[in-house]
Amino acid sequence: MTAEQFAARHIGPDGDDERRMLDVVGYDSIDELMDAAIPEVIRWHGTLDLPEPASEHDALAQLREIAGRNTVAVSMIGLGYHGTHTPAVIRRNVLENPAWYTAYTPYQPEISQGRLEALLNFQTMVTDLTGLATANASMLDEATAAAEAMTLARRASKSRSGVYVVDADALPQTVAVITSRAQPLGIEVRVVDLDADDLPGEFFGLHLQYPGASGAVRDHTPLVEAAHAAGALVTVAADLLALTLLRPPGEIGADIAAGTTQRFGVPMGFGGPHAGYLAVRAGLERMLPGRLVGVSRDAAGNPAYRLALQTREQHIRRERATSNICTAQVLLAVMAGMYAVYHGPDGLRAIARRTHAMAARLAAGLRAGGVGVADVAFFDTVVATVPGRAAQVVADAQRRGVNLRLVDADRVGVSCDETTTAAHLAAVWAAFGVPAFDGAVDAAWPAGLARTSAFLTHPVFGAHRSETAMLRYLRRLADFDYALDRGMIPLGSCTMKLNATTEMEPVSWAEFAHVHPFAPPSQTAGYRELIAQLEGWLAEVTGYDAVSVQPNAGSQGELAGLLAIRAYHADRGQGHRDVCLIPSSAHGTNAASAVMAGMRVVVVGCDDDGNVDLVDLDAKIDKHRDALAAIMVTYPSTHGVYETGIAQLCAKVHDAGGQVYVDGANLNALVGFAKPGRFGADVSHLNLHKTFCIPHGGGGPGVGPVAVRQHLAPFLPGDPCGDGGDGRPVISAARYGSAGILPIPWAYLRMMGAAGLTRATGMAVLAANYVAARLREHFPVLYAGNKGLVAHECILDLRPVTKAAGISVDDVAKRLIDYGFHAPTMSFPVAGTLMVEPTESEDLAELDRFCDAMIAIRAEIDAVASGRWPAGDNPLANAPHTAAMVSADEWPHPYPRSVGGYPVGVDRAGKYWPPVRRVDGAYGDRNLVCSCPAPEAFED
Amino acid sequence: MTAEQFAARHIGPDGDDERRMLDVVGYDSIDELMDAAIPEVIRWHGTLDLPEPASEHDALAQLREIAGRNTVAVSMIGLGYHGTHTPAVIRRNVLENPAWYTAYTPYQPEISQGRLEALLNFQTMVTDLTGLATANASMLDEATAAAEAMTLARRASKSRSGVYVVDADALPQTVAVITSRAQPLGIEVRVVDLDADDLPGEFFGLHLQYPGASGAVRDHTPLVEAAHAAGALVTVAADLLALTLLRPPGEIGADIAAGTTQRFGVPMGFGGPHAGYLAVRAGLERMLPGRLVGVSRDAAGNPAYRLALQTREQHIRRERATSNICTAQVLLAVMAGMYAVYHGPDGLRAIARRTHAMAARLAAGLRAGGVGVADVAFFDTVVATVPGRAAQVVADAQRRGVNLRLVDADRVGVSCDETTTAAHLAAVWAAFGVPAFDGAVDAAWPAGLARTSAFLTHPVFGAHRSETAMLRYLRRLADFDYALDRGMIPLGSCTMKLNATTEMEPVSWAEFAHVHPFAPPSQTAGYRELIAQLEGWLAEVTGYDAVSVQPNAGSQGELAGLLAIRAYHADRGQGHRDVCLIPSSAHGTNAASAVMAGMRVVVVGCDDDGNVDLVDLDAKIDKHRDALAAIMVTYPSTHGVYETGIAQLCAKVHDAGGQVYVDGANLNALVGFAKPGRFGADVSHLNLHKTFCIPHGGGGPGVGPVAVRQHLAPFLPGDPCGDGGDGRPVISAARYGSAGILPIPWAYLRMMGAAGLTRATGMAVLAANYVAARLREHFPVLYAGNKGLVAHECILDLRPVTKAAGISVDDVAKRLIDYGFHAPTMSFPVAGTLMVEPTESEDLAELDRFCDAMIAIRAEIDAVASGRWPAGDNPLANAPHTAAMVSADEWPHPYPRSVGGYPVGVDRAGKYWPPVRRVDGAYGDRNLVCSCPAPEAFED
Repeated sequence: MTAEQFAARHIGPDGDDERRMLDVVGYDSIDELMDAAIPEVIRWHGTLDLPEPASEHDALAQLREIAGRNTVAVSMIGLGYHGTHTPAVIRRNVLENPAWYTAYTPYQPEISQGRLEALLNFQTMVTDLTGLATANASMLDEATAAAEAMTLARRASKSRSGVYVVDADALPQTVAVITSRAQPLGIEVRVVDLDADDLPGEFFGLHLQYPGASGAVRDHTPLVEAAHAAGALVTVAADLLALTLLRPPGEIGADIAAGTTQRFGVPMGFGGPHAGYLAVRAGLERMLPGRLVGVSRDAAGNPAYRLALQTREQHIRRERATSNICTAQVLLAVMAGMYAVYHGPDGLRAIARRTHAMAARLAAGLRAGGVGVADVAFFDTVVATVPGRAAQVVADAQRRGVNLRLVDADRVGVSCDETTTAAHLAAVWAAFGVPAFDGAVDAAWPAGLARTSAFLTHPVFGAHRSETAMLRYLRRLADFDYALDRGMIPLGSCTMKLNATTEMEPVSWAEFAHVHPFAPPSQTAGYRELIAQLEGWLAEVTGYDAVSVQPNAGSQGELAGLLAIRAYHADRGQGHRDVCLIPSSAHGTNAASAVMAGMRVVVVGCDDDGNVDLVDLDAKIDKHRDALAAIMVTYPSTHGVYETGIAQLCAKVHDAGGQVYVDGANLNALVGFAKPGRFGADVSHLNLHKTFCIPHGGGGPGVGPVAVRQHLAPFLPGDPCGDGGDGRPVISAARYGSAGILPIPWAYLRMMGAAGLTRATGMAVLAANYVAARLREHFPVLYAGNKGLVAHECILDLRPVTKAAGISVDDVAKRLIDYGFHAPTMSFPVAGTLMVEPTESEDLAELDRFCDAMIAIRAEIDAVASGRWPAGDNPLANAPHTAAMVSADEWPHPYPRSVGGYPVGVDRAGKYWPPVRRVDGAYGDRNLVCSCPAPEAFED
Repeated sequence: MTAEQFAARHIGPDGDDERRMLDVVGYDSIDELMDAAIPEVIRWHGTLDLPEPASEHDALAQLREIAGRNTVAVSMIGLGYHGTHTPAVIRRNVLENPAWYTAYTPYQPEISQGRLEALLNFQTMVTDLTGLATANASMLDEATAAAEAMTLARRASKSRSGVYVVDADALPQTVAVITSRAQPLGIEVRVVDLDADDLPGEFFGLHLQYPGASGAVRDHTPLVEAAHAAGALVTVAADLLALTLLRPPGEIGADIAAGTTQRFGVPMGFGGPHAGYLAVRAGLERMLPGRLVGVSRDAAGNPAYRLALQTREQHIRRERATSNICTAQVLLAVMAGMYAVYHGPDGLRAIARRTHAMAARLAAGLRAGGVGVADVAFFDTVVATVPGRAAQVVADAQRRGVNLRLVDADRVGVSCDETTTAAHLAAVWAAFGVPAFDGAVDAAWPAGLARTSAFLTHPVFGAHRSETAMLRYLRRLADFDYALDRGMIPLGSCTMKLNATTEMEPVSWAEFAHVHPFAPPSQTAGYRELIAQLEGWLAEVTGYDAVSVQPNAGSQGELAGLLAIRAYHADRGQGHRDVCLIPSSAHGTNAASAVMAGMRVVVVGCDDDGNVDLVDLDAKIDKHRDALAAIMVTYPSTHGVYETGIAQLCAKVHDAGGQVYVDGANLNALVGFAKPGRFGADVSHLNLHKTFCIPHGGGGPGVGPVAVRQHLAPFLPGDPCGDGGDGRPVISAARYGSAGILPIPWAYLRMMGAAGLTRATGMAVLAANYVAARLREHFPVLYAGNKGLVAHECILDLRPVTKAAGISVDDVAKRLIDYGFHAPTMSFPVAGTLMVEPTESEDLAELDRFCDAMIAIRAEIDAVASGRWPAGDNPLANAPHTAAMVSADEWPHPYPRSVGGYPVGVDRAGKYWPPVRRVDGAYGDRNLVCSCPAPEAFED
């Protein structure tokens, strides 16, 4: 009478599949396979102490109960988080649509044109509204965007000063994150009351808030001029909705703008995820961190989108990287961009005017009732002075269902937004004890600050006003893309597994979606219970003692972990320890994170088998023994191998006084079988978007909790809005990071239970070994551990065929599109290879379809090698083939059209056609265009 | 400070579009246009008395409040409605996916292969489980399916008896509907206790319930044999879940099976919509009512699905029709079929076993506690005897959150289902006052009744077990189809307008989804409030005095309206009035409904302008004056014209003692401008799925409320489970029909308000006239009213081009697919024409895209006429072009590939490709296959 097990739905292969796969791999059972694959020295033989698995129905029922312990109040707290109406057509067709949320980062541009266009809309929205030249495809949140702006200013400024000046009216969480980031980099943050204090004589950058946290709208022009005179760059952290009415940063001379797009239709979610933004003036675009979408052209010369300037990125630049950001908040950026498409410039302006009118009425009512309101211009936020009564007013409002901001004992902040109604104003007035107000009210800022320039003039912001048109636009873009809802995305190291609907549904619930991160604890009991359980379960799974979910991306988890190590050493009087050992096979982000944590990167070599070279490790430890802070390794290694030397490695580093950081990117190969916290590591970050089913969203949101052993627990991330002074680093703007999507891993763990999780790991490893076994004779499999087994992924070496036939990794990757697949990871960790991670979610039919395609491609390569097809004109070199190409009136190629468009084994009726041919990335980098091109560009 | 108006999102054209459209049509304003188009004699100049329009957010908030007044209890009432777990992947990707719910009935098979395959799965599921040869693509509910089975038996039986025997253990609502349907047809229904009474000597059909409403599982074989000996046909109303364990109807000799598939993942929804089913043994397939999907082949000889045997249907057979069903419950049938795909035979059997085990344990516990349980075999339902205490037990269980069935003062029915848990059993035992039970329990039916035959052996029921595989299967099928989320569906008379997300979202809410139709009134206050408001608003919009939402399709609304007229005449001693006048232009359903209401159809001619010929009307009235029961007219006429004679027509019929039935199919052209209840009509049915935004769902659910003037109100549909004897007809199984989707029209009306509704009507009429104006010079526009204006649709006459170039309506319809459109209505109401209804939701860009395509097609026709392209081999004759066709290695056609695949103006990157070429319907009818073909059929 047990309810159906979710694990059987999450895990692709069934019993029959499993037996056939084991046959091919040559083992009798998954247990036997895992015994052989995993070194006994790290093997954990217990049973995870997790609740018995719940059915999907029961898990949802339990989440309903938990959600019911949150209270959805009217939020007028402000501070960068505002109520907003997500247009239902966007909620259903983006946020709740697997075609959008199961997509991967758009590294394969030909099959990502939909989300690339959506991100270009986002970038265009940001540049238009900020009045700057170039915006990236989103940041993790406003505070981290502001911190990135600081380091960008540091790189771009001619000033030799180490001082960064921050507006005292900046958002408190922004100040906290900036300060935390500055410290290891040796930057001195000086918080200055710009009304009262002078700017210092020398500084390299200036951070202004516009409007300020207090709501004040100031003319920052004189400050911008003064900063420029000092050789400093100016960042304006600006509210995009306000910018529809106010002179934008670009027009007052700012170099950089940073902020959030949350109020553009993205629910607050108790802090996230939302898309932050970062924009720069002309000349700085090549220094922008993060992802940047640009326009280029395809092999037919038609416009096509792709990620621009990728050489800037941390995975390319490694220890020279200046940011460790690997991802964006794509799904949320798509939503925010679509909100702008839906409303258009007139609609946004109307929302802003209405919001401002509400605030103006609110202020007028308070004044009429005798409450002091600062005599400054404002947009949506009013700070009222009620000497000694602030807490009482806030409490009274809370009883009326409205959350206000307690500024201090005498002052209360009230922010209006798109959702504010007359009833809300009435409640606020009542809480202040003033009568309701119904007089006429004027706009409340100096005419000189009013925006006069046009924005969002591109036709996309006007052509989809009706819901019908909007729906079709969303469908059209979704159809351009290949996501998990079409087929396998076998990305090594990225674990593209099932994002189950039951895991996703609660994200839309009001009790999770509409909670302000600074809501009073009495309203967030459900969230805190969910987070505490989740942190506990993650600790159990990883063998650590404490977990923080604050980091809102894997990169942020790395930083948090390294800062914990740094703080630990400092706490023990070992603050001089600053060397971070990183194997040559590591993901570039590791090195970038180490640099951001103020560490020096020292590379440790790998041996021919891809393992960390323990001899070189000894040498490097010897050389840096006193300065050794940490080693960062990935386990299983980035080569997809369970290295047997891991325990030894940990011991050696510990013996030298260093800490061991295990990157959790490959945790999908360990859960239930080994615990990093038990086999020697001190700290790891996890990728909830890899191992624990948060969808990739087309390139975000990610969540990267940091997990530590007890001695590091005191140094886990602190509260961004706490009292400060507790010494904990602050990693993201919200205490619990992207809390709004934590129901996803909660549900996954709750429904899988110990047995399900363990079986998933075993199946993931079996699937990788199955693929390796089937493909080994066609492409050499690089690296293996015990008994020739790989872990959860395998590396196919294409260098021999490249040499023999001139067929590149790119050619194979693009040809896989013709076969109906997303390419595996290309040239990481080894150039000229493909890394395949099938995951446990793909059933045998799909695994076989992939293997068959790779084998067929191998035969095509041989045909090129044998001279049957010329090197430059064959199905691989011309891949991917669009429908337009294979149905063109002329067909000048030496192979039949049918071979181009319908390779062996492809689903003919359900064929996925990419909308563009192969994209020329270099062309676009030479001719950088990062906002929407004119429609004429697309004419035939 | 008003919230944004939903009307601006619902209505496609904005102010600029409107001005340009008015210019082309030649009017200064919509008001002026409407003044010219609508005859003053029917024009209503008031303002609809509806609440001020709510924003989308406010409408959802109000619906949340209403939903909150419903109580979701554990339902163990049974009687054909059971708790079920909708797999989340199906809920999100079918029920909540516009690609499925905005699709039209699959009349254009080439662009409907996805839902046709899904329906074929449904049919295969039904035939496999019932053990019969052929099932149709779903019925409206179990009760109407059973009623259709009765009339089918009447047609097929050789017996001359007029007696239909019904099992006293049949569901009460089934008995009510059967009885109501039988009466006007002169069939005598005899309800017989099969345990106690003998069968009558002569009867034409026998209806058995299996298991019975009491839960009893009987071996019906002797009864089937006895019936066959009497020349009667046997219908078994069977529970499909039970049939996974019990010998199916086909194996005990039944001729027909009928029932519901609700418990296959379709929420109860306070009564609907769910998919009923109807299956027949070999030899009866050509007598099946409703839609039937079959396998045929396309122009390339590949298998392709399409609706089979369409010549059976009412719109073809008119007054010879034997059923008036025009639609199915496609969206729900897709869900139920996918539930079977998801679970497969083993999964369904496991659910059935678990359900049965729960019931067996329940019974054992009751017996152990001394409560009497009938000693019969049962599947999921137990009737317990508690002399004098039944109401008290039911009330006690209710307090524990569990609804039971009060059979009578002494007996309580308890039904288990997929959602039943041990906690539910504990609550039931407690309500009975017996201790909890934990003993072992055996299966409870005779071994001879156990099913031994296999079912669902087709691979589709085994290949999509993981959620990943299921998700991809759903996506693949959705991608085959063209729905409103891709582009315009300009179907005359079908009003394919926006189905807004905000209207759709509440359908998924538990408080609407999980309410049993027989739940106690204390738990359904929200539903009843919503329905009362909706009925009131519909009365206001139509000018009638009373409305009933019970009819769960337009056809059922017609029947309800005619039965009301019939009852009214009878009540006045005019029961002999039985002539129903129907214009020759009417939809065939009208005639079929009249026949079902026991009326004689007399056709009234139309004049050359398409209007009802008032001279012929006079003649027909004169001839049938004393027998005249009613006239059924559509207004605006099926020709899309506001006939000026309508008021005269009403007066003439009234003068002769008849009633006027105005078919509301074209109400989209009247709302806010004219009220049928005010201009002379006595009764109308509305199509909530046309005018009031319930989506077509690929061919259902529809909702067809009936609206009447005061004198007919006493004859509106009655409660199917009422005490009976009140003389009201019973139209569907549930008192409020498809209540679960009534939040959709409620939200539409609530958000549009009087001004929005009125503007929508004006825009719909403007759009039709705009299309007519742009296309008139290319295709003659047939029929027009005042000043040459059409109403909300226009008829394009293709007969001249057919004559000149041999290009048929079909050719143009299929060629429109190449241009990215769904064809307009073909050859209705006039053969050789296309009827275009653009609706108010299409913006000018889409209207122009359509007009441009039609104009380009006209040029292609001219090229054929001029001999440039041969008659049999041109882009029209070969349409639609698949990607495989235009990229084939050989291209034998006299026009370029690019002309075939990418006609002028098509969206190249976003091109929709049909998965099959033109489907040969006749081939499939000659070689009838109505279940899933073997996979080998699809091999190249």
